[in-house]
Order: sequence, then C-alpha cells, then structure tokens
Amino acid sequence: MKSVLFKHRSIRKFRPEPIPEELLRECLEAAVRASTCGNMQLYSLIVTRDKALREQLAPCHFNQPMVTEAPCVVTVCADVHRFSMWCRQREADPAYDNFGWFLNAVTDALLAAQNLCVEAEMHGLGICYLGTTLYTAGDIARILTLPKGVIPVTTIVMGYPAETPGLTDRLPLEAVVHYEKYTDYTAAEIDELWAEREESALTKQLLEENGLPNLARVFTDRRYVRDDSLAFSRSYFELLREKGFFNQ
Amino acid sequence: MKSVLFKHRSIRKFRPEPIPEELLRECLEAAVRASTCGNMQLYSLIVTRDKALREQLAPCHFNQPMVTEAPCVVTVCADVHRFSMWCRQREADPAYDNFGWFLNAVTDALLAAQNLCVEAEMHGLGICYLGTTLYTAGDIARILTLPKGVIPVTTIVMGYPAETPGLTDRLPLEAVVHYEKYTDYTAAEIDELWAEREESALTKQLLEENGLPNLARVFTDRRYVRDDSLAFSRSYFELLREKGFFNQ
Repeated sequence: MKSVLFKHRSIRKFRPEPIPEELLRECLEAAVRASTCGNMQLYSLIVTRDKALREQLAPCHFNQPMVTEAPCVVTVCADVHRFSMWCRQREADPAYDNFGWFLNAVTDALLAAQNLCVEAEMHGLGICYLGTTLYTAGDIARILTLPKGVIPVTTIVMGYPAETPGLTDRLPLEAVVHYEKYTDYTAAEIDELWAEREESALTKQLLEENGLPNLARVFTDRRYVRDDSLAFSRSYFELLREKGFFNQ
Repeated sequence: MKSVLFKHRSIRKFRPEPIPEELLRECLEAAVRASTCGNMQLYSLIVTRDKALREQLAPCHFNQPMVTEAPCVVTVCADVHRFSMWCRQREADPAYDNFGWFLNAVTDALLAAQNLCVEAEMHGLGICYLGTTLYTAGDIARILTLPKGVIPVTTIVMGYPAETPGLTDRLPLEAVVHYEKYTDYTAAEIDELWAEREESALTKQLLEENGLPNLARVFTDRRYVRDDSLAFSRSYFELLREKGFFNQ
C-alpha cells in the first residue's frame, strides 16, 4: 500500500468552504516539525484568508483563479528578521544578512512548506504551489508588508478539491537518480529518458495547438521564454539586495 | 492521532545494516512525486553508498561520524543541466542558466528531498539533513563530478536509527505564522517568544559550558560566527557563477 505521497496531484479548482480552524492549525504545526538549520526556524508562513487581500495578491499570480477561489493562500517566506531582532535585543551580533543565510532560510522555508502540504493532503485537502511567487516577489512583499530580512519564496493555495485530476507523469526514476557519483548523460540517454513523454497523445495535442515541432520548444518558445526568465531573475536578485540578504 | 510528521527527529547515530534495495527505491519514487516547476524535475539525487566515497565526502561535512556510519548519503542537487541538454538536442534555446532558475531548481530539489525523508521515516528509517553542504559545495561538486548546471543544495544521511532522541522544542506557533499580512514583532513579543527556551535547563547548561551571558550569543559567538558566514556565503555565490547559474 503506497503512502499519501504517491497520491499527490496539484489542485487548481477548489470548493468554497473554509478549512476548519483546528485542521489548519494541525497543518501549520506539522510544518514547524520539519528539520530547520540550528533550530533557528528561519521562515514565516503568511496565511491569507481575507477575500479582498487575496484579490490583491491575484495579479501577482497572473490572475490564476485559484488564488481567489481557494479559501486559504499561504505565502512562504525566508525570514532572518525575527532571529536577527532577537540577537540584537541580546547584544549579540547577527550575521545573517548575506547570500549563504538566504539559502539556509530558503531551505528551512521549503521543508516546512512541504510538510504543510503533506499534512494537508493526509486530511483530504488539496494544494498547489505557485511558482509565480518568484516572478513577482517584490509586489507580494509590498502587499504583505514584509520588512527587511523577509522575502517570499513560494506560495501554496489550499482548500477542499473540486476536481480529481489524474496523476502527472514523471521522467523514469533513473533520469534523476545517480548512484555513487554524478554520471553525465549521453545524447542517446537523453533521447530515451524523454521518449515516452514526447510520444504521448498530450504532447501531440500541445504541438498542434502551439504549431511547434517538438515538446522542448513548447518550454523554450511558449512557457518559459528567455527574456521573461532574465527579467524575473534580475528582479528577484535586486529584491534580495533591497531586503538586505546580500550584504557581503 | 498525529501523523508521522510530528514524530520527526534528526538521527545522528545509525545501525550499520544497509537500506533494503526495494525500500530505498520506494523512498526515491516518493521523492519524485513532489510538486515540480512545470514538471521539469530540475534536480538530481546522488545516492552514495560506497564506503570509500563516503569517507571522501566526510570532511565536506566537518567529519561528522554519521556520513561514514549511515549506510546511505544522498546529495540533493539543483540541476538545470539535464533539461538544458534535452532542449539543445531538440534545437530549442534553454534559458535556465540564471539566478531565477537556480531558485526554481532549488525549490524542486528541496520539495523532493523532504518527500524522500517523510517516506523514509514512514518506514522506520532515520534521517538527518547536513547544512554543511552549502559551506563546502565546491568540494562536494568535485568529488561527485558535477557538471555545469548542477550544484549541491543539501545532503541527507539515511539508515536505521541507533538512537531515540527526544523531540526538539520549537518556538510557539504564533512566532512563525502571520495572519493576512506580516505583522512585525515588538521587542516585548520577541522576548516572550524566546522566553521558554531561554529559561530551559539546556540553555543554562550551554551558557555555563560556553561562558556566555545568553543564548543568542551562543549562536553569534560560537555556532555561526560572522567571518565564517561571510566566507561560505561568498564561496557558494562564486560556485553559482562557476556552475553557470548566473549568466544574467
């Protein structure tokens, strides 16, 4: 019998009813049980249920309907502010305003986020991560009034599912697992790893809809275009400086 | 009845027996079920069981005994190399060699890592994350022969536990959860959030051992000293450039 992890689907349609208070608390309590660097808990979880505020956040997530339809939006932030504030109140000298500690905080934040999602799914809730968070982190930071030392990393929408999508395919396990050391791929191996997906009916439909010769071009020419990638990359790095995570 | 997530303890002493092959595979399969940006799976999991190779990795983790004692060491890497290679073979133009996509890949990698750990704990295995990975990522990359576009993010040691540590304390839930927006802390709130931990017997013992006046100083003067933090911060950022994740 496979565990709940094998049943994960991203849910993009939600029923309107709220998450019961005790259940939400249980999920948040599960989140903070995740491993954390030096037990410092360098993250904050911002739980937004207010409709008007979710409507303000919606454009940051390209107006995907789930941001206003799901009853609960959790913005997951790397946070060195709280810990640094404590240090300063104790006349200790905190040195967490640099890139290395941003990465420690991101790690803490994402492990807690995944625990939140796993616990939620154990109780019949559905979740979806919003990668758009990294593209528009500056706007999100303004709406949620994040101080220096706090920066959005990802967002999770949560609620009771109103759809039952099928399991998404994955590359064969040997595509992502290496034994002992990293073994680089041959061109033939790359072809083989993607073969099943490239030959699928879904891919054929995508190519027809997009008028493109192959699946890789759907990614590079439609979904994640070079100029957009560079623009969001630069703007997030700029925000990192603004929020005081790059004082090195 | 609380879920397995509430029972997590970091395990630092392991029994020598190996993880059964099918169980390890089940854990890895659970890892790849985690959410991933655009279903791109921008990570690699490097499973090192060879004793000689674990001994080579040990100094990268400050010779913590668990790296050689645990039967299995998984180095979790952000990986845009595999996907970019596929794109180039299809005459598509991949633009994943920048900071934004490093963060997408880190997110993918850490969600998969946490699934790996949760599944492992469901089956009675113990795990510990090694934050040292970020400090010595360049050495790890050499030992594991990582190509450009691949960079270590964290490491997990796994095996059957040879200890049963107590649950680690956490800050009160209200320390890390904000409702609607981020509410900044008052000085009095910070005092209150840390009060219980500061008054604990463990803290008193730490202060005596270290000859320091308060717990915050244990962090800033002993565990994570400014010069070390800045040095690892700069070296990881330099590696990020070397590995081609900062072509912006």
